[in-house]
Amino acid sequence: MLNFNFYNPTEVVFGKGQMKQLDGLVPKNSRILITYGGGSVKKFGTLDKVIDELKKSNREIFEFGGIEPNPQFETLMKAVKLVRENKIDFILAVGGGSVMDGTKFIGIASCKDEYIGKEEKLLTQGMISVDKTIPFGTVVTLPATGSEMNNGGVISNGENKLAIFSKKSFPIFSILDPELTYTLPKTQVANGVVDTFIHTVEQYVTYPVDAKFQDRTAEGILQTLVEIGKETIENPTNYDARANLVWAATMGLNGLIGSGVPQDWSVHMIGHEVTAIFGIDHAKTLAAILPATWKIRKTEKFEKLLQYAERVWDIREGTNEEKVDLAILKTEEFFQSLGITTKLSDYGIKEDNINRIIDSLKSHGMVKLSERGDQTLEITREIIIKAL
Amino acid sequence: MLNFNFYNPTEVVFGKGQMKQLDGLVPKNSRILITYGGGSVKKFGTLDKVIDELKKSNREIFEFGGIEPNPQFETLMKAVKLVRENKIDFILAVGGGSVMDGTKFIGIASCKDEYIGKEEKLLTQGMISVDKTIPFGTVVTLPATGSEMNNGGVISNGENKLAIFSKKSFPIFSILDPELTYTLPKTQVANGVVDTFIHTVEQYVTYPVDAKFQDRTAEGILQTLVEIGKETIENPTNYDARANLVWAATMGLNGLIGSGVPQDWSVHMIGHEVTAIFGIDHAKTLAAILPATWKIRKTEKFEKLLQYAERVWDIREGTNEEKVDLAILKTEEFFQSLGITTKLSDYGIKEDNINRIIDSLKSHGMVKLSERGDQTLEITREIIIKAL
Repeated sequence: MLNFNFYNPTEVVFGKGQMKQLDGLVPKNSRILITYGGGSVKKFGTLDKVIDELKKSNREIFEFGGIEPNPQFETLMKAVKLVRENKIDFILAVGGGSVMDGTKFIGIASCKDEYIGKEEKLLTQGMISVDKTIPFGTVVTLPATGSEMNNGGVISNGENKLAIFSKKSFPIFSILDPELTYTLPKTQVANGVVDTFIHTVEQYVTYPVDAKFQDRTAEGILQTLVEIGKETIENPTNYDARANLVWAATMGLNGLIGSGVPQDWSVHMIGHEVTAIFGIDHAKTLAAILPATWKIRKTEKFEKLLQYAERVWDIREGTNEEKVDLAILKTEEFFQSLGITTKLSDYGIKEDNINRIIDSLKSHGMVKLSERGDQTLEITREIIIKAL
Repeated sequence: MLNFNFYNPTEVVFGKGQMKQLDGLVPKNSRILITYGGGSVKKFGTLDKVIDELKKSNREIFEFGGIEPNPQFETLMKAVKLVRENKIDFILAVGGGSVMDGTKFIGIASCKDEYIGKEEKLLTQGMISVDKTIPFGTVVTLPATGSEMNNGGVISNGENKLAIFSKKSFPIFSILDPELTYTLPKTQVANGVVDTFIHTVEQYVTYPVDAKFQDRTAEGILQTLVEIGKETIENPTNYDARANLVWAATMGLNGLIGSGVPQDWSVHMIGHEVTAIFGIDHAKTLAAILPATWKIRKTEKFEKLLQYAERVWDIREGTNEEKVDLAILKTEEFFQSLGITTKLSDYGIKEDNINRIIDSLKSHGMVKLSERGDQTLEITREIIIKAL
């Protein structure tokens, strides 16, 4: 096992009707900004429920909607202005990963007075040292990103991405009521299943360091997703299936399974470029790039792939090579069973688009990827070709 | 899955040589009380290492040793006096569960000015409302109790026990260096394995609520203990085996696997009485009472016992009844393989001692135990007879 620090102070408030705890969780006599996305939280009444709860105590409530998927710097800076002008002292993010990630940026940027007027600089250096943020909580309406129980976030400025990562940027609390996610489009739920699956394997299918708890827990998340993935897409109001997705999604990216083990994240790095250039959903890019990565990097990841085959898919027959190949096949079939293709070409991406992706990776310094830092751009090119 | 709140702000600092982070974790310019137990931390140099680190910054350091197993109110009140007289503002517990539990009490009691002179009252009502404590961290020398990453503690006043449980009584940080545990006597390591195993099953072998992550994670801890238990007792300096025990012990009782599921704890309730009356090690009482409980309560726990048999012990042959019986047998054989008997009679406890245990349970209000509260004293008596 590798050395690690694990710290996660977010209070998770999980289950049916837990919105009723909101009034007790948000400071009284405060000035609250509610942040949200495209309006589905309005359409389906979640925002009204939130406001009703907040009004149970003396609070001044402000709203900022319109945070887009892959939240944009421009948009978020408007919220920063609102926070400063109205002396907001608590932010409540109501939505999915983009709203939560965006809110983390809003909270930090609002405290960076030295950057007023030159906020662009935050994109390059501003996030490096974070000593202060506006405290915030979340009400989660979309399971997938884990942002509700971690201190990370990704925001976009055109094709450029900024990663937020600070001990200060954990939510104070996150309300996870699976029933709030019933109204999600099937495709977004499918994305959530795949995204969680790949968050988990990026921290698990690397090389062995005999971290038994971390491995067993990662395998438990993957087995859970295989068991409930199709069911929770087809029957969104099956409470237990959805509850198991929501909790697995949170546990897959709250730092626990990644503590004391190597981590890869190359699939995400490539996927982010594909999303930025072609506008394909994050999870859908991952579903194509992961199996391709395992096929090209089979030797480097062989021991963990074999463990994955035997423990997650219970494959007990055949040679080790056959077990690994079958596990990769079953992974592709699993994604496909959720209605997600594992071929980038199905999105119209062709061989002559690859240079653009590679150039973009190069311009972002992603020239040596994987848990060993040995995945060169040449290998990445092979992977993308395999993913077409 | 049941509704739950999960909150755990303790920073875990895990691994070889992590003591070097201590100076950065403990407040500078502070007045520190180091609490410890019987002196093995002195004998093996851990205390000196701690003091050397603390002296790297300006701190006034005080010491309080002699906290006994099952820490006593009388002893701890001496430390409370020391804290008040010397205006201690941070406590560092160096030791195992008793030292950490005792330190939680010391921190809380020291802030209860309204109880000065009548501290006995703390035993009955003082812990109920905890609004303040002296902040504390821990350096763990004995894996087992999970106290390093939870807010619970048990202190003793003769045969009476007081449970501490407050959102304020989490350690700020806990340093978990497996190498610091190499010098433990084999029997204490064996106790740690069994204690962790039973902490886990008390939160797992109840009735099913389709909490897949929690179940898989509990099973992962149990499988880990089965894999490394004997090895880490026989070869204490096998780093990976010991590291896996230490992390499993922490994760078994930090609230995670118990979130959203029913919990039993009847084995602990009975075991506490046996320890208080006969002075038998906590874990050793559990090793005898658990299998007896499963034999007597097989019907009530059948579904989870079957899942336990199939997933933890990989039992695939035979009828469900046979699978469960074999799993209980394998559990007993596992404890015995660690050098721990599963019969209370091996400690000289006889049938005519049982009334004393039952009376003690009655006097402590333990008349309806188990996850359903349906384990009457009559059933408990059967269990103890079976455990002889």
